[in-house]
Amino acid sequence: MSEPLYDLCAIGNAMVDILIPADDAFLAANDVVKGAMTLVDAERSAQLYENAGAAAEMQSGGSAANTLAGFTSLGGRSAFMGKVGRDEFGDIFTHDLKAQNIRFTCATSPDLSTGRCLVIVTPDAQRSMNTFLGAASMFGPEDVDAEIVRASAITYLEGYLFDREPAQAAFRKAAKIAHDAGRKLSLTLSDTFCVQRHHEAFLELVSGEVDILFANEHELLTLYKTQDLSAAIEAVRAHTDIAVVTRGVKGAVIVAGAATHETPVHPAPSVIDTTGAGDLYAAGFLYGLTRNVSLPEAARIGAIAAAEVIGHYGPRPQKKLAGLI
Amino acid sequence: MSEPLYDLCAIGNAMVDILIPADDAFLAANDVVKGAMTLVDAERSAQLYENAGAAAEMQSGGSAANTLAGFTSLGGRSAFMGKVGRDEFGDIFTHDLKAQNIRFTCATSPDLSTGRCLVIVTPDAQRSMNTFLGAASMFGPEDVDAEIVRASAITYLEGYLFDREPAQAAFRKAAKIAHDAGRKLSLTLSDTFCVQRHHEAFLELVSGEVDILFANEHELLTLYKTQDLSAAIEAVRAHTDIAVVTRGVKGAVIVAGAATHETPVHPAPSVIDTTGAGDLYAAGFLYGLTRNVSLPEAARIGAIAAAEVIGHYGPRPQKKLAGLI
Repeated sequence: MSEPLYDLCAIGNAMVDILIPADDAFLAANDVVKGAMTLVDAERSAQLYENAGAAAEMQSGGSAANTLAGFTSLGGRSAFMGKVGRDEFGDIFTHDLKAQNIRFTCATSPDLSTGRCLVIVTPDAQRSMNTFLGAASMFGPEDVDAEIVRASAITYLEGYLFDREPAQAAFRKAAKIAHDAGRKLSLTLSDTFCVQRHHEAFLELVSGEVDILFANEHELLTLYKTQDLSAAIEAVRAHTDIAVVTRGVKGAVIVAGAATHETPVHPAPSVIDTTGAGDLYAAGFLYGLTRNVSLPEAARIGAIAAAEVIGHYGPRPQKKLAGLI
Repeated sequence: MSEPLYDLCAIGNAMVDILIPADDAFLAANDVVKGAMTLVDAERSAQLYENAGAAAEMQSGGSAANTLAGFTSLGGRSAFMGKVGRDEFGDIFTHDLKAQNIRFTCATSPDLSTGRCLVIVTPDAQRSMNTFLGAASMFGPEDVDAEIVRASAITYLEGYLFDREPAQAAFRKAAKIAHDAGRKLSLTLSDTFCVQRHHEAFLELVSGEVDILFANEHELLTLYKTQDLSAAIEAVRAHTDIAVVTRGVKGAVIVAGAATHETPVHPAPSVIDTTGAGDLYAAGFLYGLTRNVSLPEAARIGAIAAAEVIGHYGPRPQKKLAGLI
């Protein structure tokens, strides 16, 4: 096993986020599920945008890509695999990765536009996401760059991609390549509804392939079809080397072998927009792992990265994270 | 003269801003003029973007459109005239105006892409703008909606547009329509270099047509080819009903008839990005005028609106300004 060229590579949805402040009445009037990620088609995306207020901003997004942005801001070396369209949003997404020295290899889709996510941000800083996947949904096994997976200490998979069969096949392919090369595989469950939609396939992936799992408590409960967090934690303990269960303001529980670490959140000076909180937590935690720190210390770095991103609009850090830890 | 349907209409460049944090070394290495607006062609725009770091965010911009966004956030009724391309940026710019109830009548350009401005934001919160005008540069006299100008208490012209002859002709046409209808005409000089490039034409417009002028002190000195601010102030006093001379942290001088008011800035909790400061000052001041408050009170509203926008990335207010004054 050679020295890895990258600390982390990721497969994820290539998206541009459009952040729109709105109130709960807007969510209700437009049938938007609060706090969730809902897949929408082009028509619904356009209609919702039409109904929505002025955007606070747009920014490159995508869960795993946000994680890499944070990981790189901490000092790690990373590569991204995903798919964009041949349009302005694709140019922007690609630029922002390259500008951060994140290797981005994937081809563009000639037919579909770049994915976009209408992120409705309510005054309680909750984000409700409405995702039109566009080109991102065309990611398949042929788009997995085996050389990059082999050259990466950890390969990180974004659960949101799991809605389409070609992406699921890509995940299985990446998992095999990573493990054959003696590397680690990490997965974020991403979304409760996504776990519900593909329950069996997720469970098979987690129990069979995943070394490092990220899930919030709701996603974990959904994965193990239980209301009992302790039971879910014991179940995941048997399935993965490390499971990181985030619990919002209650902090995170790190489950690894016989050990269980309850770790706190990092105080944020203000909470403006929780978009990217989980993505940045994963960035910090994975950065800690690749630097061989203890699990509670990795959790501390994750919490610091998450605190930075919720203090402003947008899913990517505005400050150099290496200076904060 | 009938009751105006709009408090304010504006003619300006329709732009999307891409805000990119960078240091002074980046400006030097890429020959970017600090603090100025530089017009660039498509090739230079693309090259500069290629060299630049990841964007902090993108947002609908354009000087006069920012002013209308602030004006509407204060409670005013407004309309915008400008030109976009048939692309994602055009959709976003149009959406953000409509979402604020700002009437936007202009046609799209079938050939050119929507204007974009690479705004390099340095740690001192200064912004250095690199504008590819694209479709915005196609604005001409035929795009002036006479009905809207006649129906607006004040017509506001963005000096940045003055670089092309068709836009200059559009300004003269709008001025005549406004005055024939008994309405007021306002102009912002926008940029020292723009004033230098079109000195005679600007002077003719200011002395012959402008009722309410906005200029920072550098632009005013350039307009009157003097280094003596008092001399420039006396010159502009003879040319316009009201001249608003902004002086950064020194506040603003309001010159009207025999009166001269020195007015202070409004303290900003933090200064992140000065993009839009002048635009929002104009929004607040013009809002005060249309509500018939005193000139110092109009200046106070302008200062509050400017303080809000410099406290975050992006050229448009994030808070409802009506709640701040």
